[in-house]
Amino acid sequence: MTVDAADVEARLALARTLARDAGAVALAYFNARETLVVEAKANPQDVVSIADRRVEEMLRARIAEAHPGDGVLGEEYGLTEGTSGFTWVLDPIDGTSPFVNGMPSWCVSIAVLAGEEPVVGVIYAPCVDELYAAGKGQGATLNEAPMHVSSGRSLRDGVVGLGANHHVAPAEFAGIVERLLGMGGNFIRNGSGALMLAYVAAGRLVGYYEPYMHAWDCLAGYCLVAEAGGALLPFPAVGEGLTRGAPVMAAAPGAVADLSRIAGLPRAA
Amino acid sequence: MTVDAADVEARLALARTLARDAGAVALAYFNARETLVVEAKANPQDVVSIADRRVEEMLRARIAEAHPGDGVLGEEYGLTEGTSGFTWVLDPIDGTSPFVNGMPSWCVSIAVLAGEEPVVGVIYAPCVDELYAAGKGQGATLNEAPMHVSSGRSLRDGVVGLGANHHVAPAEFAGIVERLLGMGGNFIRNGSGALMLAYVAAGRLVGYYEPYMHAWDCLAGYCLVAEAGGALLPFPAVGEGLTRGAPVMAAAPGAVADLSRIAGLPRAA
Repeated sequence: MTVDAADVEARLALARTLARDAGAVALAYFNARETLVVEAKANPQDVVSIADRRVEEMLRARIAEAHPGDGVLGEEYGLTEGTSGFTWVLDPIDGTSPFVNGMPSWCVSIAVLAGEEPVVGVIYAPCVDELYAAGKGQGATLNEAPMHVSSGRSLRDGVVGLGANHHVAPAEFAGIVERLLGMGGNFIRNGSGALMLAYVAAGRLVGYYEPYMHAWDCLAGYCLVAEAGGALLPFPAVGEGLTRGAPVMAAAPGAVADLSRIAGLPRAA
Repeated sequence: MTVDAADVEARLALARTLARDAGAVALAYFNARETLVVEAKANPQDVVSIADRRVEEMLRARIAEAHPGDGVLGEEYGLTEGTSGFTWVLDPIDGTSPFVNGMPSWCVSIAVLAGEEPVVGVIYAPCVDELYAAGKGQGATLNEAPMHVSSGRSLRDGVVGLGANHHVAPAEFAGIVERLLGMGGNFIRNGSGALMLAYVAAGRLVGYYEPYMHAWDCLAGYCLVAEAGGALLPFPAVGEGLTRGAPVMAAAPGAVADLSRIAGLPRAA
């Protein structure tokens, strides 16, 4: 679709405000997490709490008020189709496992698609008060300062982020770990794929790979990485692809060839 | 050795003050990390910066002033023997890789041994202002509030921390990952073993395992976990064991049997 810059600007501004407001609500739940009721979804490691639901409800209400024609896809309440061509893609709390266990590596993730392309990406990490934001063609920022993917590092002197979940066979994930370490690489896994994608955009990680990720986990990060100068494996953000998962890879220029090989994927572009 | 409670109290009080002061110095370097010169040690993933050295120098000076007869073992400057029977074991910045790359998962780690037993453990994470502290027989606290290991969770509904480094074969580490995921477990790896041990003590992780760790990476965490009610694989904190590495495992009661099996180790006690 043809995209008017003013339409992107308006949604980026709203996404920034919403991410901070949602982060404040989520942080209040986090600080009172002893009282949270945590429910298992697909298995005991796949959890959700009332915090996830309340934050998504708040985001949906504010988006509907400001842009009633926009569609919304959220992790907890699924897809509501729109008429404007814009679709908001929300993960109210990415990293629910660290969140319910009291660790700081969780975030609010908000993307806006124009058609199937992410044109806005905002990720907010409340425990350290870091706001990552990007709009198509406008570059990417971390707390208002321009950010870029790592320019000089490779897999051998930089750190990679890895993710996995119950859709990924243990042997497949272990194989990735073994190949990465075997070539002198190093990795973190902090429990939030969205936040690790933001770290790629900020040059903290040289790349991120997860064999199966949902649209709400990765599309804000995709916009951040693209605007920060990184390479991405295309994500099928259209039709069933929006609600089914797909492999996700993001990398700085110096790591993209090696990370693609380790993951056994076509090279990201 | 026979330990006087007042001697432990005095050192715990100093360790708390030193951890916060050292954290403030390290945080100033962290916030100016664009200008840090980073050097590789054993390989390009094993790094040190001037921040590690300056913080250790500051800690050594303050300890020598307060307790001139105490020994000091630090990651950067090695072992200085003492005469009092107490030995301070310092990692000025545990998680140098996250530190130099701009991620918040690093900490200051300070232990005090009486003979070969850790009787004081203090870990401070400046980016989130969290101070973990324990003295033998006095329980463990997080920012002054009592903390305990997880009482109800197992490997199947809790999160484990894992660590590795160039002393560990990639296939060995990958095997641990595969066995853990295969039994329905989940893990994080945030780049700081000391901080993940503190998370075990705080009940955020149900366990931690690393096949090879040095005394300065683990002894403060060991004191925290012991005082918070967790099980530990004994660490040989005597003679050559103080400067050589050993396997490290810490676990909450509900995870100790499974984690020991996954690691292929005797059950921690």
